[in-house]
Amino acid sequence: MPEVRVTRRLHFSAAHRLFRSEWSDAHNADVFGDCSSPNWHGHNYELEVTVRGPVDPETGYVIDLKELRDLVQARVVDDVDHRNLNLDVAWMKDVLPSTENLAVAIWNRLTDGLPAGVRLERVRVEETPRNYVEYAGG
Amino acid sequence: MPEVRVTRRLHFSAAHRLFRSEWSDAHNADVFGDCSSPNWHGHNYELEVTVRGPVDPETGYVIDLKELRDLVQARVVDDVDHRNLNLDVAWMKDVLPSTENLAVAIWNRLTDGLPAGVRLERVRVEETPRNYVEYAGG
Amino acid sequence: MPEVRVTRRLHFSAAHRLFRSEWSDAHNADVFGDCSSPNWHGHNYELEVTVRGPVDPETGYVIDLKELRDLVQARVVDDVDHRNLNLDVAWMKDVLPSTENLAVAIWNRLTDGLPAGVRLERVRVEETPRNYVEYAGG
Amino acid sequence: MPEVRVTRRLHFSAAHRLFRSEWSDAHNADVFGDCSSPNWHGHNYELEVTVRGPVDPETGYVIDLKELRDLVQARVVDDVDHRNLNLDVAWMKDVLPSTENLAVAIWNRLTDGLPAGVRLERVRVEETPRNYVEYAGG
Amino acid sequence: MPEVRVTRRLHFSAAHRLFRSEWSDAHNADVFGDCSSPNWHGHNYELEVTVRGPVDPETGYVIDLKELRDLVQARVVDDVDHRNLNLDVAWMKDVLPSTENLAVAIWNRLTDGLPAGVRLERVRVEETPRNYVEYAGG
Amino acid sequence: MPEVRVTRRLHFSAAHRLFRSEWSDAHNADVFGDCSSPNWHGHNYELEVTVRGPVDPETGYVIDLKELRDLVQARVVDDVDHRNLNLDVAWMKDVLPSTENLAVAIWNRLTDGLPAGVRLERVRVEETPRNYVEYAGG
Repeated sequence: MPEVRVTRRLHFSAAHRLFRSEWSDAHNADVFGDCSSPNWHGHNYELEVTVRGPVDPETGYVIDLKELRDLVQARVVDDVDHRNLNLDVAWMKDVLPSTENLAVAIWNRLTDGLPAGVRLERVRVEETPRNYVEYAGG
Repeated sequence: MPEVRVTRRLHFSAAHRLFRSEWSDAHNADVFGDCSSPNWHGHNYELEVTVRGPVDPETGYVIDLKELRDLVQARVVDDVDHRNLNLDVAWMKDVLPSTENLAVAIWNRLTDGLPAGVRLERVRVEETPRNYVEYAGG
Repeated sequence: MPEVRVTRRLHFSAAHRLFRSEWSDAHNADVFGDCSSPNWHGHNYELEVTVRGPVDPETGYVIDLKELRDLVQARVVDDVDHRNLNLDVAWMKDVLPSTENLAVAIWNRLTDGLPAGVRLERVRVEETPRNYVEYAGG
Repeated sequence: MPEVRVTRRLHFSAAHRLFRSEWSDAHNADVFGDCSSPNWHGHNYELEVTVRGPVDPETGYVIDLKELRDLVQARVVDDVDHRNLNLDVAWMKDVLPSTENLAVAIWNRLTDGLPAGVRLERVRVEETPRNYVEYAGG
Repeated sequence: MPEVRVTRRLHFSAAHRLFRSEWSDAHNADVFGDCSSPNWHGHNYELEVTVRGPVDPETGYVIDLKELRDLVQARVVDDVDHRNLNLDVAWMKDVLPSTENLAVAIWNRLTDGLPAGVRLERVRVEETPRNYVEYAGG
Repeated sequence: MPEVRVTRRLHFSAAHRLFRSEWSDAHNADVFGDCSSPNWHGHNYELEVTVRGPVDPETGYVIDLKELRDLVQARVVDDVDHRNLNLDVAWMKDVLPSTENLAVAIWNRLTDGLPAGVRLERVRVEETPRNYVEYAGG
């Protein structure tokens, strides 16, 4: 059975702010620059979730794309879309919402939700068209 | 002298929320849906500014693109990028930050800043890759 | 009240074939080339619907984008997505499914569905990333 | 000699349908949803072919991009563009035309066509802007 | 007969330089900045040509897209692709190759080449993903 | 500490020509085709630089994106933007400016400039929207 990678792309819009409450405003501004702006800012995040597995000879699928989309929608997008990543998302609590930390948290939301034989391969989060972050576990 | 339209594309990331303070939370949610989420959300906005004018026979330009970019950067992007459209932007004060109102406000920021003979033709604001708003004055 | 244009972008995937049943296969191939291939081919169509109207001072909207999307979804996308434009679409019956004819038919599906004060301004159909068609009525 | 990966992107438009003739229409609809729509549907497929090899010190090329394009055009695109993947493509006969199976079949069309020292590294097929499949052999 | 606009998108890669030979190097650099860099620079230009006309009831076309592409290819792209806009293009001779002048020159190359009843509506030239120019005659 | 990949995308516009001075014009044209056009041509290059490292628990960053951008800007983009890759770039001297050689040269410009613990993972250069090259060292 050939092993194939399948990727589904979703998007969400969220507000966030990078800062540490134990630091002064000046220190936050020094480390995080504009990303520490006190009244929040936000992004249209593009999220790619890639899974890998053998192709089912009956369906020609590694995974039904609708099933993959529903999983990511339910475990990730419904929690973050039109929300504030610092304040509204239970699984980002006490985590600085950098793109790096967001990608790792999304990975952890998805690892145990896939059908038998299908492995999570990569999570990619684009914060702007000019930068993105990828996490592949490990 | 042929008249030509010239467009410069810029982007900014901002937080916002659609709500009217004189309305109840329930009424805001009913009218604005997720866009009224209390802790803000945000977008990567793409902004296109189009001007029109005769081509200068010496330079081949309607306007120096650097001059156009600097104008939009100084009068618009510097004020909104990594900011909260409801709280941080003097020229959006008391204006509901819908994409429509934002486009009109950006138009008003730019009309009197152009060189003689160059007219503002259109402001286009993309809130997400799936929707955009255009204002042409009048 | 400023008048603003608002555009919503949707997409659908459909099969079609350009041919006239009263013509021979050879004549169809001569006029329509590959687009006349007998067992159909298909596209990911991108559809932009633009409306125009005054900005509501209460909501900051010309039209609620969700209402616009629902209208286009119900009257157009639900009928054509994952369908055959020649065989499955009642409102394309007896119409050659060129991009031009499709744009005009979509326009006609939408003109009477908009709220008072909001006018349909333009329908744009992209058949491939290299070509698109626009219809503005009239 | 440094080893470099080179990717050429091509596209084609095709019709297809996911269904198994030994299943009832109801079972096909249950498993494949809209993708099983009886009168076909279609897509603009984007195809990326990636090869890998040492850089030739004389030409600075891993492979002449024109040669790579001509190979993919002749062995893949000419067979599928403006065609029906279920009915018209000899090398997809008796294969359910899922994106997964299509990527594997395209891989198999290309492995023995490359110049000495250049290896096929990855085939990527995008069915829509929201999903794609990658196959790397093995 | 409804009137519809049809757009074909093509691309070409060219070198150019903005400068006036009667000016000093310093003055050229002052007016044109980096665009005056003495050893040339270049771009991937994206060109959109839009025509307008009634839809032919037999073919469903305003114009056969292949005919439109062949016209633009023959009269424009073949002359400029992989060429130097200052040195190699007869119809840009003695014209400063700004995007404005290029759009007007392309317009003039195309006006008399269209079938009866089809009018050239707009030429759009994108020099980079961040700026473009449009000319509509007159 | 999870290891994450971070990518920054930048762009530049440059002229170049593929040819070997020790070959005849005819032989150059035979091997390099249009890319050997004597008066240069050019491209809008898109450059992606990917680094990999552990996420800093204080900042949530693998690397400050501004630091990564400034490094690539200073060591690469400032040298090639609006320049001629054959004539103007010291670190491309005596190197045929193919996309392959350019990617390797950019890699070599960046390997020793990163903070401790952060490794260069991949350089990707897109010459046109239809082709790109990736180098990962080794």
